[in-house]
Amino acid sequence: MQNKKTVAVIGLGSMGYGIAQSLLRAGHNTYGYDINPETVSRFQLEGGSKGNLKDVASTFDSVVVVVLNSEQTETVLFDNKIGVVDQLKAGCVILSCATVAPEFAQKMELECQKRDVHYLDSPISGGSKKAANGQLSIMASGTPKAFSAARPVLDATASTVFELGDKAGAGSAMKAVNQLLAGVHIAAMAEAITFGITQGVSPNKFVEVISKCAGTSWMLENRAPHIASGDYTPHSSVNIWPKDLGIVLEIAKSAKFSAPLTAAAMQQFLAASGSGLGDEDDAAVAKVYARNSGLTLPGEKKC
Amino acid sequence: MQNKKTVAVIGLGSMGYGIAQSLLRAGHNTYGYDINPETVSRFQLEGGSKGNLKDVASTFDSVVVVVLNSEQTETVLFDNKIGVVDQLKAGCVILSCATVAPEFAQKMELECQKRDVHYLDSPISGGSKKAANGQLSIMASGTPKAFSAARPVLDATASTVFELGDKAGAGSAMKAVNQLLAGVHIAAMAEAITFGITQGVSPNKFVEVISKCAGTSWMLENRAPHIASGDYTPHSSVNIWPKDLGIVLEIAKSAKFSAPLTAAAMQQFLAASGSGLGDEDDAAVAKVYARNSGLTLPGEKKC
Repeated sequence: MQNKKTVAVIGLGSMGYGIAQSLLRAGHNTYGYDINPETVSRFQLEGGSKGNLKDVASTFDSVVVVVLNSEQTETVLFDNKIGVVDQLKAGCVILSCATVAPEFAQKMELECQKRDVHYLDSPISGGSKKAANGQLSIMASGTPKAFSAARPVLDATASTVFELGDKAGAGSAMKAVNQLLAGVHIAAMAEAITFGITQGVSPNKFVEVISKCAGTSWMLENRAPHIASGDYTPHSSVNIWPKDLGIVLEIAKSAKFSAPLTAAAMQQFLAASGSGLGDEDDAAVAKVYARNSGLTLPGEKKC
Repeated sequence: MQNKKTVAVIGLGSMGYGIAQSLLRAGHNTYGYDINPETVSRFQLEGGSKGNLKDVASTFDSVVVVVLNSEQTETVLFDNKIGVVDQLKAGCVILSCATVAPEFAQKMELECQKRDVHYLDSPISGGSKKAANGQLSIMASGTPKAFSAARPVLDATASTVFELGDKAGAGSAMKAVNQLLAGVHIAAMAEAITFGITQGVSPNKFVEVISKCAGTSWMLENRAPHIASGDYTPHSSVNIWPKDLGIVLEIAKSAKFSAPLTAAAMQQFLAASGSGLGDEDDAAVAKVYARNSGLTLPGEKKC
């Protein structure tokens, strides 16, 4: 391979694992790290490189950070004990994929630049299937040098890269906007499909008709079939949303921006999570609506 | 023309006028009625038939009722003085297009059937342009005889007819579900596009990126460009939504169904209407968000 790079993926959850697989498939020398040692071993069996993070960090051309939130991102990058940035060679690039506040991304960029490390604000969208197939959408911003250093990783993992500016923060801002809508649309779909049941509209009929009408959304077309078939296998779980809408509402609060629909959707996901549905597919927020009005969804037993 | 019918359209607003034009274009003998005599004259100049409603009602094969709400629908059909149903011949069909509660549609069907008149519950979707081009979506339910009698009108006015069952009510139920989503999605788009501005995401960039991401919706793709271009020419006005979401929330209340996102969207449209934006395009709900956080939208002057 002409442009073979040495890449580390930190965080091998449903998204990170797929990203690591896509990098391997593209021929890059790929290290995978996770707090779960079994996941690390599994990735090594698939062809991942072996090596203690501190021992090999100086060989990395890129580090893809696919952890849950800003706290974990900061720990992985700058913690006194386990932070990786101080081990990296000059010119290495960090691709930071978690959904975080734009201000946090700017702070991380600054800290990396102090150490001659590039930082690409690069939140991802698309779900675990697209991650595994190298077909993510990435909402990226950073310096031209950060983009250039990150290009082999972007090429291997994304089908769409939105280049949103030459400073960290713009990528995270767009991701927050997208998550606001995605979360509200899932809750709205759940509200509408259960409201429909009260009026004699079956979930199957809902999917068939509304997906062709002005009331449709990307999330509706993707998630409503889960409810119609009663299948809550978590492609993206309920617990994502208290986290991501929490970030949106925090940023909004800082900007003194009133976001009543986001706040309402947040409460529905919190109710879903609080009632034990956190690890189910996020379409399970419909169960909160169903319970609140005594309805039975497809695949559920009447109590 | 082989199957030339005599049709009346009652209510020549932006939707009704387009429906009447489509019927004319299809070759039907078409009468148009409205409380505004100038609109009636304009339609007659375009080829509409002339005749006092009571004098010619017995010749109608179909009556399309395109008024604002259930009160107006009931008045047009059954008012002691001006109600048309008692003048109609047996086998005539009423197509009732207003957004109404399913129970109301069932009541109207029953009253029509008592008088040997067919009733098709047929709320419409698609906006004034599609109405004028005969390309509406119609969410219809009614007896097979009602469908059969209404067929020439459906053929002339709709590109998609969802046949939702053999009783009135199912059409209106699906329309209510669609309006819930459409209204929530417009408000969510407004919330997201203005939130984006606080984070440095321009409305143009919003349209460009989000319409290709998981956060998109039919309404977002249709309405967000109005905000980006600062053009609030009313294709569908703010004032539609306090009415239609009001119907949704009333039906939901009757069913003891809690609809927090619909309720939140309702408040934003009420604020838009209350602050003098009622006759602007419904995308103007974004101005409520903008004002509430001191933002300036494209095309607005900074105060």
